[in-house]
Amino acid sequence: MDTTEAATSSAASPGKEPRTARGRETLRKLLDAAAKEFGDLGFHAASISGITRRAGTALGSFYTYFDSKEAIFSALVRDMSQAVADAAAAAMPQGVTGVAREQEVLTAFLDFARSHKEIYRIIDEAEFADPASYRAHYEGAARRIAARLDDAEKAGELVPGDNEVRGWAIMGANVFLGLRYGVWDESRPAEEIAATVAALLRDGMAAR
Amino acid sequence: MDTTEAATSSAASPGKEPRTARGRETLRKLLDAAAKEFGDLGFHAASISGITRRAGTALGSFYTYFDSKEAIFSALVRDMSQAVADAAAAAMPQGVTGVAREQEVLTAFLDFARSHKEIYRIIDEAEFADPASYRAHYEGAARRIAARLDDAEKAGELVPGDNEVRGWAIMGANVFLGLRYGVWDESRPAEEIAATVAALLRDGMAAR
Repeated sequence: MDTTEAATSSAASPGKEPRTARGRETLRKLLDAAAKEFGDLGFHAASISGITRRAGTALGSFYTYFDSKEAIFSALVRDMSQAVADAAAAAMPQGVTGVAREQEVLTAFLDFARSHKEIYRIIDEAEFADPASYRAHYEGAARRIAARLDDAEKAGELVPGDNEVRGWAIMGANVFLGLRYGVWDESRPAEEIAATVAALLRDGMAAR
Repeated sequence: MDTTEAATSSAASPGKEPRTARGRETLRKLLDAAAKEFGDLGFHAASISGITRRAGTALGSFYTYFDSKEAIFSALVRDMSQAVADAAAAAMPQGVTGVAREQEVLTAFLDFARSHKEIYRIIDEAEFADPASYRAHYEGAARRIAARLDDAEKAGELVPGDNEVRGWAIMGANVFLGLRYGVWDESRPAEEIAATVAALLRDGMAAR
């Protein structure tokens, strides 16, 4: 998962941010190992020793960066949330706006879900293990969509409307399309799914 | 939660279906108590004695109808899934079809989410505690939407399209709108949210 150096550093518990490139590398290894450990076993069965074993680091280096299993779980949810946002941002070519931009974002998200199948299990378990991060993840995603729609509306590309509600609707659609056509079943091209949704967002489905 | 007598009876573990009205009543009490117990405490912390205490029944009557905590949790997920379907079905006036019908369904679902806030926690926890029921719940909901769209398409009300994908998109939108405007914040009228979504489904949002 690609995140910036700054984002990786800020994943550490307060006062434990790495100050060297090597420290950031270890922190990154721990986060990637945590994604596998929590993804495979779930929050309750996952253990710190399981994470350090998967990361190939000493148990002590876990505590160099994190205070607890809860702390690395929260850091992981924020890290994954950022990775989803980064994947969406990377999928937006300059000058592609409005519905076409949402189509690119959905295509990229379906690809992302296929290559990071553990993300659903981890984000969804946050509803129980870390409700604040769960809520922040979805509120952030819906807000980013609404902001893009606001821009497109100002540019005259979209019919004025309630972009907050549209944002939540589009995000919810994307989440379940990612589960259905990304995690559960990869047999259909991501582009085909995104094209169907884009047609719906562009022109609706009522016969005229 | 209203379900038919047959549905309540079939919630029992195999061979333990109640044969009297009084038995069905006890089973119903146990399911309603289980919704509170699992909703408040989550699957792991919930207990059979907590369920019978809330239901005001003897511990023995739990085992008259259910084999285990897992069994009543699965029964509860199926029961809630049926309650969501029943609420949607009750919201469809004769002759209202196509996008207008989806608008009625979303309005009813937002109201349902507001009065059954525990449903998200329980269905979402099924992703971990009972993955088969989790999947069946969402597949069933998406399939029902797709079937309604197929009917409306045949009647010439909708532009032909991939109703399976449309069904998953609409269901996902409804799930997150229910979380955002039903469970987390009830300040906006359900009708207003549903009208925004209906406008999007009817005509899309691209400026013409």
